[in-house]
Amino acid sequence: MKKTIGILGGMGPMATADLFQKITAFTDAAGDNDHIRVYIDSNASIPDRTAAILNGGEDPVPAMADALRHLELCGADCVIMPCNTAHYFLPRLEPLTKLPFLSMIEAAAKACRVRFPGETVGILATTGTLAAELYQKALAAASVPFLVPDEGERAALMEVIYQGVKAGAPPSRYRDAFRSVTEGMTDRGAACFLLACTELPLAVQALGLELPCVDPTEELAKAAVRFCGYPVRAQS
Amino acid sequence: MKKTIGILGGMGPMATADLFQKITAFTDAAGDNDHIRVYIDSNASIPDRTAAILNGGEDPVPAMADALRHLELCGADCVIMPCNTAHYFLPRLEPLTKLPFLSMIEAAAKACRVRFPGETVGILATTGTLAAELYQKALAAASVPFLVPDEGERAALMEVIYQGVKAGAPPSRYRDAFRSVTEGMTDRGAACFLLACTELPLAVQALGLELPCVDPTEELAKAAVRFCGYPVRAQS
Repeated sequence: MKKTIGILGGMGPMATADLFQKITAFTDAAGDNDHIRVYIDSNASIPDRTAAILNGGEDPVPAMADALRHLELCGADCVIMPCNTAHYFLPRLEPLTKLPFLSMIEAAAKACRVRFPGETVGILATTGTLAAELYQKALAAASVPFLVPDEGERAALMEVIYQGVKAGAPPSRYRDAFRSVTEGMTDRGAACFLLACTELPLAVQALGLELPCVDPTEELAKAAVRFCGYPVRAQS
Repeated sequence: MKKTIGILGGMGPMATADLFQKITAFTDAAGDNDHIRVYIDSNASIPDRTAAILNGGEDPVPAMADALRHLELCGADCVIMPCNTAHYFLPRLEPLTKLPFLSMIEAAAKACRVRFPGETVGILATTGTLAAELYQKALAAASVPFLVPDEGERAALMEVIYQGVKAGAPPSRYRDAFRSVTEGMTDRGAACFLLACTELPLAVQALGLELPCVDPTEELAKAAVRFCGYPVRAQS
């Protein structure tokens, strides 16, 4: 039997659709019928992860455990989550299931090491993801030098993500804010960027930037395709 | 409890991702956490529907029933299928579950009547879908006048779908074939078109055509959003 993928999704739904689309695009399948079986529970009601980490908001783990049970019932062979911040709860989720999790954080950190060896990676993320130090720890464990946005850059990034992409604003509205971040971090030594928030690849695309960067959703999709024993298809 | 959607998908995986993305885009949700819970079983191994209908190929119903069971286990409140041809098997699937199916064919036929009242609809579809007469019957039941492609136009459409979109060919390669079909059918009285194959909206988009048309995936997404009690968000 071929292996299957379970997506613990909904955090948010657009990022979940993006991950699913990327899994399909990266699968080097012989034909339409040869694609990987994917189970998805897209539950947007999972309590906000950042609020839980930073402000003692409602614990998202019970709702995530419920979705996990659905993926088990379907017969998934692994679990993946298209939300960077959700990985903060991985140590509490792993004991709840026999299914292996493929970590988006680890896949992205490994891609930084392989694609930009020896280079300093600038982490672009929300305040929540940065506070949880998910990528700082993963990059350190992978021996990848990195730097984080300073206070002004964090504020500019939140503006790009919330008042820009999430609000559906035209790219011209957040071009300067985004450029101020990447230029500032480049000046301090960043040679490439980790787009550690699912809105950021959309911003880079909308701005038409040729930025050396790693997209964690893309790396997670590739890791899942490999887990299922398929070659990864090169993208044009 | 809010209602949830089950997608019996994988026929094909890209159309499944497209439907999921459209459900999210059309949901007039108050915020990220307010979106509809969606369960997906994307099983690309479901035997080819057209082959089963036209050439006595392997029966897809057992594999579809298996996916249906997964959606029930998850707790879906309705089932939708992002494959026009798969609806041929609906009369055999409905007795297998208590869950209601929302029909893509009926949603699209209704949209033709509402959006183009009294106009003649040109059905653009694969030979398999046309032979199964799914849309001919649904449009007749909705009292919508329609016409189907002639033999030469069917061949041209199959070329657009298979050697064009599915093969990833540049739009210039299939522009003339597609135009010959729509011009021929317009001459015979078609005032609008039903894009009754999931590849065709992609062709229309790639060719940059301003064609009066109904996209069944879009109509199914809207029907599912309404079933869950949400207003449908207008698209820009």
